[in-house]
Amino acid sequence: MQRYFVSVNDVQMNTVTIQGDDRHHMANVMRFQPGDQVVICQPDETSHIGVIDQIHPEEIKITLLEELDEQKELPITVTVAQGMPKGDKLELIAQKGTELGMHSLLPVQMDRSIVKWDGKKEAKKRARLEKIVKEASEQSHRTIIPHILPMTSLKELDLHQYDYCLVANEIEAKQTDHSSTFREVLGKINKNDQILIVIGPEGGFSEKELAFLDHEHVYSIRLGKRILRTETAPLYVLAALSFYFEEWS
Amino acid sequence: MQRYFVSVNDVQMNTVTIQGDDRHHMANVMRFQPGDQVVICQPDETSHIGVIDQIHPEEIKITLLEELDEQKELPITVTVAQGMPKGDKLELIAQKGTELGMHSLLPVQMDRSIVKWDGKKEAKKRARLEKIVKEASEQSHRTIIPHILPMTSLKELDLHQYDYCLVANEIEAKQTDHSSTFREVLGKINKNDQILIVIGPEGGFSEKELAFLDHEHVYSIRLGKRILRTETAPLYVLAALSFYFEEWS
Repeated sequence: MQRYFVSVNDVQMNTVTIQGDDRHHMANVMRFQPGDQVVICQPDETSHIGVIDQIHPEEIKITLLEELDEQKELPITVTVAQGMPKGDKLELIAQKGTELGMHSLLPVQMDRSIVKWDGKKEAKKRARLEKIVKEASEQSHRTIIPHILPMTSLKELDLHQYDYCLVANEIEAKQTDHSSTFREVLGKINKNDQILIVIGPEGGFSEKELAFLDHEHVYSIRLGKRILRTETAPLYVLAALSFYFEEWS
Repeated sequence: MQRYFVSVNDVQMNTVTIQGDDRHHMANVMRFQPGDQVVICQPDETSHIGVIDQIHPEEIKITLLEELDEQKELPITVTVAQGMPKGDKLELIAQKGTELGMHSLLPVQMDRSIVKWDGKKEAKKRARLEKIVKEASEQSHRTIIPHILPMTSLKELDLHQYDYCLVANEIEAKQTDHSSTFREVLGKINKNDQILIVIGPEGGFSEKELAFLDHEHVYSIRLGKRILRTETAPLYVLAALSFYFEEWS
């Protein structure tokens, strides 16, 4: 069933008012008629079956029926701190990360990031990323939309905000002998923990960044034996976390 | 160190002759000089350090030094049977699948595939995919280049050729209760087993295809609790297999 994310202001008692892009999608793309049903997801992470009552040129009225008992979210909260990559790779990470259960995406301006965002560019890029994660949330049946956090630098990152920080370091992949850190750290993580994944840009981390990440709170993990591109690394970690917490445990 | 895949004909005793695109890459992109070292990967899956001897306008001569003891490949052989997706998604799967250790990519014309390949188009598409997997193999430090197999239909697939067939079925993702099949089947797989992963196109499998896949040899697995796009599903399975066989065991 098609799902739509609404804001607090869209809901009054059991009635939801849909305007803008979502109204267009319902009326013109899906060609819904009164009586058709959709899933309405609210910011409090509840989702309900909704039946379409009235379709007006400016808005659609929907009545909420029963609440769905959905558990679609990872049992841990995962933030991807992504060293700013080239081209449209951040969009790929936003879309695929959403499908794979990412909670927040934090773009990080790293020493070797070639792309720079200034104020105006950042606003435009953020709007684009927010559209991507909303659509991907609807399509992948999430009950929340991942947050696109304001861009930061690595040294501004408060590592203590997270229970565990995992760093995917290309150097690890090159070691034939490794310490199974990924397995060990997974054994420590509890449900509802806050996890930060830190991924370097195309050129990897600078020496200064590696020194900053050499911290008791940070675990350096290997992601298989091959060298992954910057945009593949967060998807590997998210898939492994989903596999471990949703399909293994 | 930059790596290059050569064919049997390129190697005579300890001397490798590089021509064409790779010669251009070495001379004009990397701007190598005599004395510089690269990694040379041969079809028998061996890799050697090679030192550049002579750079000519048409070819480069390289002398092989010591063999590298590299173990970069998954301990199982994974073929991705991908229902033909729209747009350039097969290229994404080829590239990312290579990074994640895929052995072969088998494009499958499924009932709900919108894209059709005719003879001429297939030749062009295959050439493009072969270029992508070669470059991705070099970049991700593989010791083999994944095979792009000739397009087939699902019913032509010989499931008995494989030790285990895993099918990612959207219906599984929607079940709140599932049977942990993914975990169970992983427990059965042995090193060197041949694994087939079957992924439906955007519209999923047809009833006829599901009936064909309802086979003692086939395990229907869930890939987390969310609905993944067709191009994300094979990457999830490959990442989970890498995590399980390379980082967990």
